[in-house]
This record gives sequence, structure tokens and C-alpha cells, in this order.
Amino acid sequence: MQRAAALVRRGCCPRTPGPWGRRQSSAAAEASAVLKVRPERSRRERILTLESMNPQVKAVEYAVRGPIVLKAGEIELELQRGIKKPFTEVIRANIGDAQAMGQQPITFLRQVMALCTYPNLLDSPSFPEDAKKRARRILQACGGNSLGSYSASQGVNCIREDVAAYITRRDGGVPADPDNIYLTTGASDGISTILKILVSGGGKSRTGVMIPIPQYPLYSAVISELDAVQVNYYLDEENCWALNVNELRRAVQEAKDHCDPKVLCIINPGNPTGQVQSRKCIEDVIHFAWEEKLFLLADEVYQDNVYSPDCRFHSFKKVLYEMGPEYSSNVELASFHSTSKGYMGECGYRGGYMEVINLHPEIKGQLVKLLSVRLCPPVSGQAAMDIVVNPPVPGEESFELFHREKESVLGNLAKKAKLTEDLFNQVPGIHCNPLQGAMYAFPRIFIPSKAVEAAQAHKMAPDMFYCMKLLEETGICVVPGSGFGQREGTYHFRYLCLFVPGGWSQVCLGKWTCYHRTQAGCRD
Amino acid sequence: MQRAAALVRRGCCPRTPGPWGRRQSSAAAEASAVLKVRPERSRRERILTLESMNPQVKAVEYAVRGPIVLKAGEIELELQRGIKKPFTEVIRANIGDAQAMGQQPITFLRQVMALCTYPNLLDSPSFPEDAKKRARRILQACGGNSLGSYSASQGVNCIREDVAAYITRRDGGVPADPDNIYLTTGASDGISTILKILVSGGGKSRTGVMIPIPQYPLYSAVISELDAVQVNYYLDEENCWALNVNELRRAVQEAKDHCDPKVLCIINPGNPTGQVQSRKCIEDVIHFAWEEKLFLLADEVYQDNVYSPDCRFHSFKKVLYEMGPEYSSNVELASFHSTSKGYMGECGYRGGYMEVINLHPEIKGQLVKLLSVRLCPPVSGQAAMDIVVNPPVPGEESFELFHREKESVLGNLAKKAKLTEDLFNQVPGIHCNPLQGAMYAFPRIFIPSKAVEAAQAHKMAPDMFYCMKLLEETGICVVPGSGFGQREGTYHFRYLCLFVPGGWSQVCLGKWTCYHRTQAGCRD
Repeated sequence: MQRAAALVRRGCCPRTPGPWGRRQSSAAAEASAVLKVRPERSRRERILTLESMNPQVKAVEYAVRGPIVLKAGEIELELQRGIKKPFTEVIRANIGDAQAMGQQPITFLRQVMALCTYPNLLDSPSFPEDAKKRARRILQACGGNSLGSYSASQGVNCIREDVAAYITRRDGGVPADPDNIYLTTGASDGISTILKILVSGGGKSRTGVMIPIPQYPLYSAVISELDAVQVNYYLDEENCWALNVNELRRAVQEAKDHCDPKVLCIINPGNPTGQVQSRKCIEDVIHFAWEEKLFLLADEVYQDNVYSPDCRFHSFKKVLYEMGPEYSSNVELASFHSTSKGYMGECGYRGGYMEVINLHPEIKGQLVKLLSVRLCPPVSGQAAMDIVVNPPVPGEESFELFHREKESVLGNLAKKAKLTEDLFNQVPGIHCNPLQGAMYAFPRIFIPSKAVEAAQAHKMAPDMFYCMKLLEETGICVVPGSGFGQREGTYHFRYLCLFVPGGWSQVCLGKWTCYHRTQAGCRD
Repeated sequence: MQRAAALVRRGCCPRTPGPWGRRQSSAAAEASAVLKVRPERSRRERILTLESMNPQVKAVEYAVRGPIVLKAGEIELELQRGIKKPFTEVIRANIGDAQAMGQQPITFLRQVMALCTYPNLLDSPSFPEDAKKRARRILQACGGNSLGSYSASQGVNCIREDVAAYITRRDGGVPADPDNIYLTTGASDGISTILKILVSGGGKSRTGVMIPIPQYPLYSAVISELDAVQVNYYLDEENCWALNVNELRRAVQEAKDHCDPKVLCIINPGNPTGQVQSRKCIEDVIHFAWEEKLFLLADEVYQDNVYSPDCRFHSFKKVLYEMGPEYSSNVELASFHSTSKGYMGECGYRGGYMEVINLHPEIKGQLVKLLSVRLCPPVSGQAAMDIVVNPPVPGEESFELFHREKESVLGNLAKKAKLTEDLFNQVPGIHCNPLQGAMYAFPRIFIPSKAVEAAQAHKMAPDMFYCMKLLEETGICVVPGSGFGQREGTYHFRYLCLFVPGGWSQVCLGKWTCYHRTQAGCRD
């Protein structure tokens, strides 16, 4: 009563009974009774609006889950409601989400995870001993022997040791130090965290971050969030999306006019472009970074996904060390890996790691401090990362099954990559570079000028218009090239090479051709 | 050879063989051979240093995992190496990490998680049917029926539905809309995401964010990262850490001189202060936010942790709706919950949700876009959140065990809170307010002026000096009050009330008293 009266005295707004009037406090109810004669006021202006919000966040773009994906969701709902379409399901080829496309998890990984989750199963005879051994090792390193405890901000110690041992094996003996390993919430988290520490300055001394075009749009999004300057270098489509150091030179020189280029990001194997860098190219890039004093970010999440027999994955870390001490003790490098890609495809667990080389000790302290604000990466994701880097070895009970599953997934991916490439190259108006690695095709599409005009009439980029039509007419959801960046006047889309096997490719080819016939109607 | 020669021509640095010379490429080896006569250069200046790094990140402080916790880690290593100390183990009372302190996970939660992780177990007779039912429901809502797929950026649909149903039950029928629920990577992620969208402006129009003092230092850390303005309002220690609206008024008026106060953060039940807000206080706060046009952030992660029989948890959402349509259709509110606290203590899974009220539809789009850059919260954490909001109900097979475990954990927490409060109040020089909720005590310590001088001589805040001594002499790791904020000239520490039961409290009391005797030696 006192409260209600006070509100009235203060000239407070009317409080009429809501639909939950029965549960209103007596004070609120009384206030309502006193005040309900006044007309209800109209809704006030919001505090948080497009105008008032953080402009850097507003500027963020992320096409992989952008308007085309929202449209795909709407079409799926329409199909569920029985609305007739020229297709019966939406094929979500917009994102590298292997298990959503039917890829089965690696049995050993899930067995260890289940044992860690519910340790009563450690007594069950239906789990192999090597899986139990892994689970015990992980649990012993967790507070209270539980995945439910926070880990150290940098990640569980023994998992960082396993990651370091893996890198050492992978790189043929170049040693890795667990102190340089930071477990992360997927690779995206590591990339955005290190960029967050790196950016500084205002005006002409704002940090410039060099990224490939086409790029994976996490980079442009984080650069925008951090108000850094995006410095584009173009991959050479005519040359199988190779990275040319002369193009890096051009880009950095031009950037110096308006910002302070400080970071060079490399994606190898390439996303969305599917190329695998040669050892020589990596040497050139490292030398360039050394020369130009650039901090190197090597996004190597597709390191297990190399399909072309002519290509091999070389880690930046290994090449850096092989180039000798001037490089290996000077070039600052952060490289990233993830549980989401490779043969595991465990995207949902959000596991990943970052290895840093030549990071200043004081910066390591800053990094741990920054990471500690979010407490720790998901411990289940850390456990998944452990199994990725510490799989069964010959002689262990689970080795044979693990090996068979791994080879089957990678073999299928290689076959599908080849199929996809061939398929696209059979369609008039599409050109696809050889798919050497990663999981995507980024074919070029030649859009007739009348179709470009039609797109402009719809206020859409021509490739967005193309992808939207493709989705509406065939149910195939792909991401327009403009979401990744492309040379002015060229058009592409990114397509996940994980389509359901068994004749689907032929259906797909039929649809593409059909679609191109439709487009042909717009030809000059 | 060509490459090596090119490097020489470019005047490149010397490349001497590293310890992994055997594995150097032939080009690298040749380059080394050509160049190794030159003296090795000294290490270059790093690109990323304390001077060049992001100054906003440098300004971040996060005491919960700060220097005292690093010191605790060092002491643990020394104990492992056999170095003698006046204690045999470090008690990590610095962080609310229940399972690390021996709390057992809730069986039902882990059973459902194990079933989701390794669906072969769905055929096992050792799992109850209600757990299987939950697991099937979750898996059916995941891409490819797998926790390994990415979820929608906002979280798995059916889990958001379960969260909405939970909120509706909790709030006695006030409806919640699944579209307003965003699953997050722990509550920290939700809080920093919404703050990231909210902050804008420069100079005098920089966004002011009001936070309680003492606060949970996530807030100050994120405010610093985002270059927003921290606006302190002081909780009333004399009055059991109550929130007084007059103090909010003072704080906002003073802040308007130098920034644009736009956000008001509330932590209820309080962290680190352990108070539970009365319904009247919440009404006052909501009215104040309405009046001053402030966006409300309600950190309600301790909603299940209320111990005092005189207190009850009231959600901001419920009170907002009960205050009538002027408030319920105008006040913008985001509230947060987590799997980490309550009776579950599942910190490691990093599960959480945010409910938004009256968020502008365009901002919802911006929020989904921003979240989509990180793809999705860990799906295992989402599943854990689902079980928290959708536990066994009477009549279900697992209900009895679940209920017993839940009551046991909460009963123990209540008992320990009371024990802790009494214990501290028996020690001369310590005063502890009643612990009504959450998991911490934030007792005031009266540090003798000679000890303050000793601290200054060590260039430490007096409470940091106290906590460091306490750690070194007793092995108890607590966080100094300065890490949370406190009124000038007062000193506190935060202590997790989860110490191992069974006589430890007596040991602890002995140690405290002993420590205060030591301190007494410094008395005036």
C-alpha cells in the first residue's frame, strides 16, 4: 500500500492488471486499482535499437548463416506443413557440418566421451580397455575427477600435453611445448581471442589484418567487431586459388597508406577455396611475414582433409622451424585446429586448440587473463580434442575399428570431392578448380547479364539472387560468393561436398542443368 | 636451390640447420649450407608486446583467477615435489566449482548425457526409461540425431522450448516465449554478448554500465574489453548487502556528467555478497530502470541457491510482469541462468541460457547474426541445460533418486553456508553478514594498521597481502575483496562455502584464529 502510494506520488506510470493478475502482489494489485482509470500509454521507444546499438557489431556480416539460411529454414517449415515444392527436402550444403549430413561419429571417440560423462560405465564389460584407459587419464586430470568441474583457463594439463605430443609427431619431431597450447571453444574462439589481443590504435595506426579473398567470414566478422582494418589479398583463381607473395606485397604496401598492417591470416587447406598450399608457398609466406614484421595466424583446421594425391599438408610451424633459427626464434605464429572437421566432424562439442610460437611471455600472461574471464573452454570439447590427438595405436584393442572408420570417412570425402568437381565442370556456365583439400567447392558461375539485371531489380547481389533461386527451385542451400569475397565482376558460391551418396549426384546434376536452362532464358 | 639463391639475393636472414636438420627440405638445407657462415642475429623485437597490444584487453582484471590463484598452483606443485608446508593440500575456495570440491553430479543428468553421447546405450537395460526418453527427445532435435552437429546459433529448438516451459512454471504462469531464449556457453557468454551489442558512443556519450560493488568481476572485465564506462553503485554492507535505490539514483546522476548510462546490471542472489533481494527491492529497481530508461541485466544464476528460510527467489521477469503492462511491455530485460551453479554444479559443460524481454525485433536479428559467427554454444552444454530445466517429475522412474540427490546437495550447501557464517563470526577481526543465498561468504576483515603498512611495503593491496599470507600459511585460497570492489578503506575476501565436510571447519577455525594471532603481532 505504502509502495503503491509512493509510486502515485512520484507520478509513476499506470499499472493495470496483466493477464497474470491473480498472481500479482497485493501492492501491485492495489496500485493497479488506483491507477487503472488512466489510458494505457503507447509503447515507448526502445533503448536498444539499430540506431543506438554498437555500430561495429551492426557492421558484422556472416553469410554462412545469413539470409539464405534463414530462407532455407522457412522452406523446411513449409515442406513440413505440406506445401508442395519441386523437391522434398532442403540439402544444407551451406556449412561444414558432417554429422548433420549423416556422417557417423568415430566409435572410439564417443566411447571415451561416454565413459568420461558417466564413469559408472568404467565397470561395464561392453567398453574396450583402451577407451577406459583414455577416459581414466582425462578424468584424473579434471578437478574432482569430473567433466563437470572448471578446467584451468588454458585447458586441462594432460590434454595440452597430448596436443603437444601430437604436434611433435605430426611435424616429424619439431618439438611442441604444452605451455604454448591453449585449448579453445572450437577454432573460432582461438582466432577471435588472439585477434582481440592484437588489435590496437586509432586512425592511421589502426591494426590492419590481412586476410585472403575469398575468406572464411569469421575473419571479416571479428575484424569488424574489433574495429580493425580488413586488408584483402586475392587468391589466384586462374592458378587453382594459389597464394602469390607478390599479391601479399601489393596488399601490404597499399594498406600502409591508411593503417598499420600487423597480422597476416592464412587458411590452409583453403576455406572456401579447397586449395592446399605447397611447401614453397608456405616458405615464401613465412619469409614475407618475417620481412614485413607480421604476426602470422595459420588456420589449419582442415589439416586432415587433403584429397589430391599431388598435395600434402605442411604445417606452418614445421616449415618455420625448418627455415632455421632466424625464423623459428623470431616469427610470431598462432596456429589453430579443431574437433569439427577432419574425419571426426565433431562440430557440436566446440573443441579446438591454438599453438603459439614466439609469443612474448608477458603476452602469454595477458592471454591467460583474458581467457580466464570466460573461465574455461567446455571440458567435454577438451576431452574430444584429446581423443582426436591421442587416437588408438596399432596393438590397441580399438585400433582396427578406429582405423577402418577413419579411412572410410576420409575416403568418402575424397570421392565426394572428386565427384563434386566433375559434376560442376559438366554444367555449362560453371567452372570449378580442382578440389585438393578441405570440404568445399567454390565454383565460379557465369551469370548472364539479363540475370544480373534481374538481380539488381530485386536489390540483390547477382550471386545471392542465383543462390536464392537455386534454393527455391531445387532445395539446395549454398552460400553466395559475396559472403566470402570475390574479385569484382566474378560470381561464385560455396558448396559443401558432403551430399548424400547413392544417385543424388545425378539428381543434382539434373537440377543444376535444368537451372542453367532456366537462366539461359535470360541470356542476351 | 632456386629458392635458396633467391633468399640470398633478397639479402635474407641466415638459415642455419636447426636441431631437426635431418628433416629439413633440401632447399632449406642448401640455404643453410650457403648462409651458415654468417653470425646468428639476436632475437628481434616482438610484434605483440605489452606496449603494442590492445590497451582495453590490457586493462582487464579478473581476480577470481588472478595472482593468488597462480600462487596456489605454484604451492600445489611444491607440495607435489615434497616441499614441506604447514598444510598438506591447497583448499581452492576461490571459485564456485562444486564438483572440484567433491560434490557428486546428479545421476539423472549424467545418464541422459551419456545416452546422448553414445546412443548405443539406448539399448542398455542399465539406464532408466525416463532418461532414455529425454535423450531421444534431445537427439531427435539435433542434426543427424547427433550431439556432434552444430545446432542453430540460438540453440536447439526443443531445448529452448523446455527452457521456456521451465520459466513459465518457475514464474507461476507468466508465459515465456522460446523465441526469446538464447542458449549460451555458460552465463558469462550471454552477459558479454548482450553487453557487446549494447555499448556504443565515444567521449561523453560512451555507454555507462551500472554494476554493484562488490561485483562479480566478469562485469568489470567485459566493460573494460568493450571500452564502456563502469558506473559503480554500492551495496549496503551495514544492511546485509541490500540494494538501495537511492544509491542507484546517486550513481546514475553522477555518471551522467561523463557518460551515457544505458545498462543496469543486477546480481541476485548476490555474488560475491550472498544476499537475496526482496520482492519490494526488485520492484523498486524495475521502476528505477523504467524511469531512467536503463536496459536491465539480471544475473540470476544462483536462483536455486537460497538458504535463508526468510528469503525467496523472485525473478525479475515475474516481478516485471506483475507490475503491469506499462512495465512489462516497455522495460528491456535480459536474464541469465547457467548449468554451473544451483544443485547441478556442472561448470565444465558451459551450459546456460539468456531470456530477453522487449528486445526490438531488429536487435534480435542482430543478436542471432552475432551469435552465428561463433556457430553455436556447445551442444553437450545445451543438453545439460535441458536436463536442468526438464528434470524427472513425480511418477517417473528416476524421480526419487533425483529428488534425494538434489535435496542432499542443497541441504548440504545450506548447512555449510550457516557453518561458514558462524565460523567467521567467531574469529576476532572478521565480520560476516548472514548468508542468504548463492555460494559465497564475503566477510569483512579488519586489518591492523601495521599490517596495512607491511602490505604497502610489499606493494600489495592490504587484502591481497592478507589473502597471500593466508594461502602461504594455511593453504586456503580465497580472493581479495579488491578483485570485486569494496568501499575505500574496507577489506574483504570471497570464500566459497563448499569446504570438505567432516571436521574441516574446526581445522579451518583453528587456522583462522592462529592467523589472526599472527596478525595480532602487527597490532598498533
